[in-house]
Amino acid sequence: MNMYDIIYKKREGGTLKQEEIDFFIRGMCSGDIPDYQVSALLMAMFLKGMSKEETVLLTDAMKRSGDIMDLSAIKGIKADKHSTGGVGDKTTLIAAPIAAACGIPVAKMSGRGLGFTGGTIDKLESIPGFRTAMDVSEFSEQVNRIGIAIAGQTARIAPADKKLYAIRDVTATVDHFSLIASSVMSKKLASGSDAIVLDVKVGGGAFMKREEDASDLAELMVEIGNTAGKRTAALLTAMDEPLGYAVGNSLEVEEAVAALKGKGPKDLTELCIWLSGYMICFGGKADSPEQGREKAKQALLSGAALEKFRELVTAQGGDPGIIECPSRLPQPGYKAELRASQSGYITEIAAETIGFASQHAGAGRTRKEDSIDPAAGILLRKKTGDFINQGDVLASVFAANKELAEKSAKEAQQAFKLGKTPPEPQNLIKKVIE
Amino acid sequence: MNMYDIIYKKREGGTLKQEEIDFFIRGMCSGDIPDYQVSALLMAMFLKGMSKEETVLLTDAMKRSGDIMDLSAIKGIKADKHSTGGVGDKTTLIAAPIAAACGIPVAKMSGRGLGFTGGTIDKLESIPGFRTAMDVSEFSEQVNRIGIAIAGQTARIAPADKKLYAIRDVTATVDHFSLIASSVMSKKLASGSDAIVLDVKVGGGAFMKREEDASDLAELMVEIGNTAGKRTAALLTAMDEPLGYAVGNSLEVEEAVAALKGKGPKDLTELCIWLSGYMICFGGKADSPEQGREKAKQALLSGAALEKFRELVTAQGGDPGIIECPSRLPQPGYKAELRASQSGYITEIAAETIGFASQHAGAGRTRKEDSIDPAAGILLRKKTGDFINQGDVLASVFAANKELAEKSAKEAQQAFKLGKTPPEPQNLIKKVIE
Repeated sequence: MNMYDIIYKKREGGTLKQEEIDFFIRGMCSGDIPDYQVSALLMAMFLKGMSKEETVLLTDAMKRSGDIMDLSAIKGIKADKHSTGGVGDKTTLIAAPIAAACGIPVAKMSGRGLGFTGGTIDKLESIPGFRTAMDVSEFSEQVNRIGIAIAGQTARIAPADKKLYAIRDVTATVDHFSLIASSVMSKKLASGSDAIVLDVKVGGGAFMKREEDASDLAELMVEIGNTAGKRTAALLTAMDEPLGYAVGNSLEVEEAVAALKGKGPKDLTELCIWLSGYMICFGGKADSPEQGREKAKQALLSGAALEKFRELVTAQGGDPGIIECPSRLPQPGYKAELRASQSGYITEIAAETIGFASQHAGAGRTRKEDSIDPAAGILLRKKTGDFINQGDVLASVFAANKELAEKSAKEAQQAFKLGKTPPEPQNLIKKVIE
Repeated sequence: MNMYDIIYKKREGGTLKQEEIDFFIRGMCSGDIPDYQVSALLMAMFLKGMSKEETVLLTDAMKRSGDIMDLSAIKGIKADKHSTGGVGDKTTLIAAPIAAACGIPVAKMSGRGLGFTGGTIDKLESIPGFRTAMDVSEFSEQVNRIGIAIAGQTARIAPADKKLYAIRDVTATVDHFSLIASSVMSKKLASGSDAIVLDVKVGGGAFMKREEDASDLAELMVEIGNTAGKRTAALLTAMDEPLGYAVGNSLEVEEAVAALKGKGPKDLTELCIWLSGYMICFGGKADSPEQGREKAKQALLSGAALEKFRELVTAQGGDPGIIECPSRLPQPGYKAELRASQSGYITEIAAETIGFASQHAGAGRTRKEDSIDPAAGILLRKKTGDFINQGDVLASVFAANKELAEKSAKEAQQAFKLGKTPPEPQNLIKKVIE
């Protein structure tokens, strides 16, 4: 077997066998297969496609390229959630404590943000003292003790994905269903949970702009998960405007705490109830997702979810004082206000534009090695459908200095579209795929 | 402009502009564009295709990547010929002296062989003393003095092609029309001749197995040549069985000398008359290719072509004594005879199989750095259509030792197919594209 023949086969539209996919992933990781052969195969995969079977095999090979977490020390059916990435998506900070409060062991590995979407780890690290680096025994022990732990993903989980992604990123081979699905699912399968709830974003602020594309991707990921013996579901959810009002790390923590107090934005709260509802159901603590959602609502109303979040912060060394006093979170150097230049209904707040503006204010990274400003970001004051008068504040922009804030505000301004009539309301939850 | 966007554009089936193709070729040669981006683009080009215009632009960018030979010091209309590579193809050794004998300045740059087809330079170097390394002034001076020079192509001619080919060779992106055409023509256009006659081989022993593919490739190359202002024609010629009887370097020189004496195999002689006929016509020494062929025949009959070959060999330091006494060419260490195991008509002598058997006897290279045995090769004793009796010698195999010769003979045996009736005769010249 050699890499040339594998590239040739895929170039001709052939179906790769398990031993060929394994040879590729093993050789790439060992360095025996040079990057130029990897990228040629990636482009052939991109243009000739991969069957479901091939995608399942690729995911499995990538999963096996590194450590596979052994969470058998944790009692119960462990449920994980994953979002394909959106703007203002702080759902993990809310849905995970809700599920844990309902008795589901949540052993969550998360990543950092890159590009215009944020990462859960960056958000949590804006809480003073919060530690995200944990070893497996500490991680398992914490889940057994308080029912929840959220740690940064180690470099030893699916290293093939890291290597492959680095090449895809510079060879225009990122946005392909099979490659996206295998990338996401290889990490999820290696992370050791028993059930997986996926939040597949669709819309202008998501990688998938069209609902049918998102649906295809979701189906593929669900099939990969189920084939691997993990109960998996995917929610297709709207990502046209940012989720909630807050975009940026400490801003999003503050909004998440508000949601846990039952005072969060409607869209954010609704999505968290759906996600945790599935986690509760898959974890065996509800007979149906509907019953799961009822339990989730109770956990919010009773304050149990907020208390679980407090336990989580405390257990991982963070300052729980931020819950009562959000001003203990990092504060920005400068704040700029974005005002409406005319009156009308907001018909659109382009999530991607807001995401980039927030990134450029300092909240996100352009390259992996960039550092971020935890206090930077954008706080919307209005949402799509709201009527505004000329001069009203549309959003506040937070940054380290005036120059950054004003530049970001100018960019964010482009996100808003006004009209004479309010837009048709859209469903937040578009579809569920099991 | 950046390479990512260029890959993305081609991946989506877009048409690359001149500045994008130039950016790619320049960046690849300077090393600014890494190999993994080059190979991703090559695979996208392979699978999404390249328009004629893009292929012309790519050829031009590759031509400009290195030295462009200035042959203006040579008087007259210089005609070049090029073969896409076949087994037993020694036409340059015959057609070039014929054309030169008819007054066409022949300033020919040739390559070495790789794989199962031979290279003109390797063949000439089997003549004791023959030098193929010449600088431009020596080369031009010789063409002005005796009308002909054949030199090895320097590394400074179209270096982009060398770099690109090295990557194509290991990423399954060799056999694509636009990439083949631009590779061949970039070197031809940089070599400074005014007219180009292409011999595009088609059949089992050629890169192009099907006539329509060869025809498409030929049309593309002719268009590239004509667009660049060089009068160009392509002959589609059969490459099912080897051309002539001799395969291997000194064996082919000996057969070429016989052909120049008017005693060559019919197929070889016919093809050389066609090729030189076009060169004579394009060089302005005949009004039509037909008249060119008549002049070519005269040059063979009169002995003028043979004398021109003698001048060429002498001018480049070779031993002209090989013309009268072929045993002065390198002689093999061992000779094995291949005999017919039954009687019948030969219906096929698979050129590719004979080519590989000859290569493995020592006549060819598997890798660029391999050395070759000038005396090794295969001398057919029969051709397709001949009737043979059991025990007749089909071919002689020459190698350095018994082991190599017998192994090669066993391989060559597979090339022969017998039948009860003679096969339909095939046309050697299938089509001419101008």
